[in-house]
Amino acid sequence: MSAQTTSSDAPTGLPAEHPLRTADPARSTARSPLVRALRGQEPTRNPVWFMRQAGRSLPEYRRVREGIGMLESCLQPELAAEITLQPVRRHDVDAAIFFSDIVVPLRLAGVDVEIQPGVGPVLGRPVRTAEDAAALPPLEDDALDVIREAVTRTVAELGDRPLIGFAGAPFTLAAYMVEGRPSRDHMGPRRMMHGDPDTWAALAGWAATVSGQFLRAQLEAGASAAQLFDSWAGSLSAEDYLRHVQPHSATAFAHVADIAGPAVADGAPLLHFGTGTGEFLHHLRDAGATAVGVDHRITLAEAHRRLAAHPGPDGRGAVPLQGNIDPALLGAPWPVLEAHVRDVVASGTAAPGHVVNLAHGVPPETDPEVLTRVVELIHALPVGEGGQA
Amino acid sequence: MSAQTTSSDAPTGLPAEHPLRTADPARSTARSPLVRALRGQEPTRNPVWFMRQAGRSLPEYRRVREGIGMLESCLQPELAAEITLQPVRRHDVDAAIFFSDIVVPLRLAGVDVEIQPGVGPVLGRPVRTAEDAAALPPLEDDALDVIREAVTRTVAELGDRPLIGFAGAPFTLAAYMVEGRPSRDHMGPRRMMHGDPDTWAALAGWAATVSGQFLRAQLEAGASAAQLFDSWAGSLSAEDYLRHVQPHSATAFAHVADIAGPAVADGAPLLHFGTGTGEFLHHLRDAGATAVGVDHRITLAEAHRRLAAHPGPDGRGAVPLQGNIDPALLGAPWPVLEAHVRDVVASGTAAPGHVVNLAHGVPPETDPEVLTRVVELIHALPVGEGGQA
Repeated sequence: MSAQTTSSDAPTGLPAEHPLRTADPARSTARSPLVRALRGQEPTRNPVWFMRQAGRSLPEYRRVREGIGMLESCLQPELAAEITLQPVRRHDVDAAIFFSDIVVPLRLAGVDVEIQPGVGPVLGRPVRTAEDAAALPPLEDDALDVIREAVTRTVAELGDRPLIGFAGAPFTLAAYMVEGRPSRDHMGPRRMMHGDPDTWAALAGWAATVSGQFLRAQLEAGASAAQLFDSWAGSLSAEDYLRHVQPHSATAFAHVADIAGPAVADGAPLLHFGTGTGEFLHHLRDAGATAVGVDHRITLAEAHRRLAAHPGPDGRGAVPLQGNIDPALLGAPWPVLEAHVRDVVASGTAAPGHVVNLAHGVPPETDPEVLTRVVELIHALPVGEGGQA
Repeated sequence: MSAQTTSSDAPTGLPAEHPLRTADPARSTARSPLVRALRGQEPTRNPVWFMRQAGRSLPEYRRVREGIGMLESCLQPELAAEITLQPVRRHDVDAAIFFSDIVVPLRLAGVDVEIQPGVGPVLGRPVRTAEDAAALPPLEDDALDVIREAVTRTVAELGDRPLIGFAGAPFTLAAYMVEGRPSRDHMGPRRMMHGDPDTWAALAGWAATVSGQFLRAQLEAGASAAQLFDSWAGSLSAEDYLRHVQPHSATAFAHVADIAGPAVADGAPLLHFGTGTGEFLHHLRDAGATAVGVDHRITLAEAHRRLAAHPGPDGRGAVPLQGNIDPALLGAPWPVLEAHVRDVVASGTAAPGHVVNLAHGVPPETDPEVLTRVVELIHALPVGEGGQA
């Protein structure tokens, strides 16, 4: 645990040369549309990026990944940086998202995990008992150097365009760790949190720690924002999320709370996203997020209404939103897609800030030219007026 | 289409000897707790059954299925009846659910489909184009004789305990047909409904017809209620459900609207269930359902509140509910599970009728003795008072 304690206690803010703090305009991300929108300030254009923008939809990605395993590609700094930059070059998106995988911190901690093509993360030894959870190894701080190097390389290329850091949330990480592989219902972790709450707390607590360390390494090395992905949180009731999951996601965010999040005005904004979480967006916010991501199931205006109606313990109700172009429409005829994108931008004007994104990741079969055209459309729409202009 | 037209137009109500209409008290299901609760009448005890109660959790099921494929077992009337009856004998549940699979009507229509163990339904030729949809074969009425025979055998054994008929809803059927296999996000059908709405309408319309025929065959042969399973509807926004899916589910229900559903006071109650559909339970009701199933994501009291707040075109707001014991708690220590079951029964008293069920299917690894104990508990609780008594 020493590495983690050092990492959490030592820093007293982002380094002076961090892109959010630097005086060099060519490297400063503080005035970028993404950071401004996430701080509730008016951006110069509608910021947009896409979850999974770095990935299989791009031929240049498939080319550089040839013959290299998923986790291996995440752990080669030069390659990870290249892949992270590809969609920025191609689509002119307003941010890069660090190319990684939610199980990278597990691998760096020494957990036996691999990504099987066509399957997803598979663990050599699922975590099912108190003994399994107790045996999980700590993530040593120097194991994160490979991540820091990739981030440093990426940020140097990005200039004044922000890099968004990336981590899986404790529930989603723990879901893979209990099941040992992807599952549909996530019955394993849901069963454990009710039937064996102590083991659940140990496992989710471990996942929160490595997730927080992973976020911190990226933010310190130059990421200007970070997103916690709780992909499977939508399998939970609001009550179960609040009781058994939110405290652990809050722990992950707490690892960076001195340099990021809603309590640090000039820190890095923190995004929190899960699919099917429309019933408890306010719980995602209250885990310590600056902004909340929304999937395709409800409109941004409705998400805004719900957040405003449920202020948190810190008094925050409405917060900036991210989302929510339905990926299912990326293959529709352009007029259908265009009308949908305009609706999304218009709906987002209800919130105190809006970063346009998909409602979920880019499907691998997406035509990248469609994404480029979507970015052009969003950038051409007047800020704060959306599609109704 | 002739078989379907004949089947839809000819009958003028359930046969006189149908269990819902017979004067023979040993065979009449009209006074059963399940039917009474679904008609909003006070039952003699809290009715309970479990989705997937006939299946892999039972050793007697695994024994009779040995060496027999899933679809083959559904199409052997004697075996299907035996499997349907097993959980009634073991657990004393208040209804049998007809043992079948949502793709059985596809197979009966001649579509190349099989159930691969560990995978699920796999189609030889996915339906992706207008030509694919146009080439779908009609389901001939006499192909359903094997279903009628299985239902007749089952009902003869059940006596005054009702059999619930079973069909997959058009969206869930179409999801398998477009993807060709199970998928997580159901992007295929969601993409089609936006990008190629005519093909979607043709495919979903075909699925609605075979689904309706399948329901009708079971109801006419003696089922006292029927449930439409829209397992994957929760992947849709309420808006997409209403526009692209509900009309087709309504078509399926319309096939039996003269003998079942809310407009036929002495007909068979119709249940409508999907997971993750808390945002649009009223749309499930308004497809033509007598009662709505609720998953574990919201309480029954909240489901009731939402339905009451959104009355449909026919003026119905609150309707009887079914659900919603979280399957994830079946493996929890008994005091935890017992408290949860009491909460569910108490929460259900808000609705004008309540059939206790799981929030989703019985997980295969469930200890059947736990299910028996849950049934005993529910039957011991005072009707209409729930766990607070």
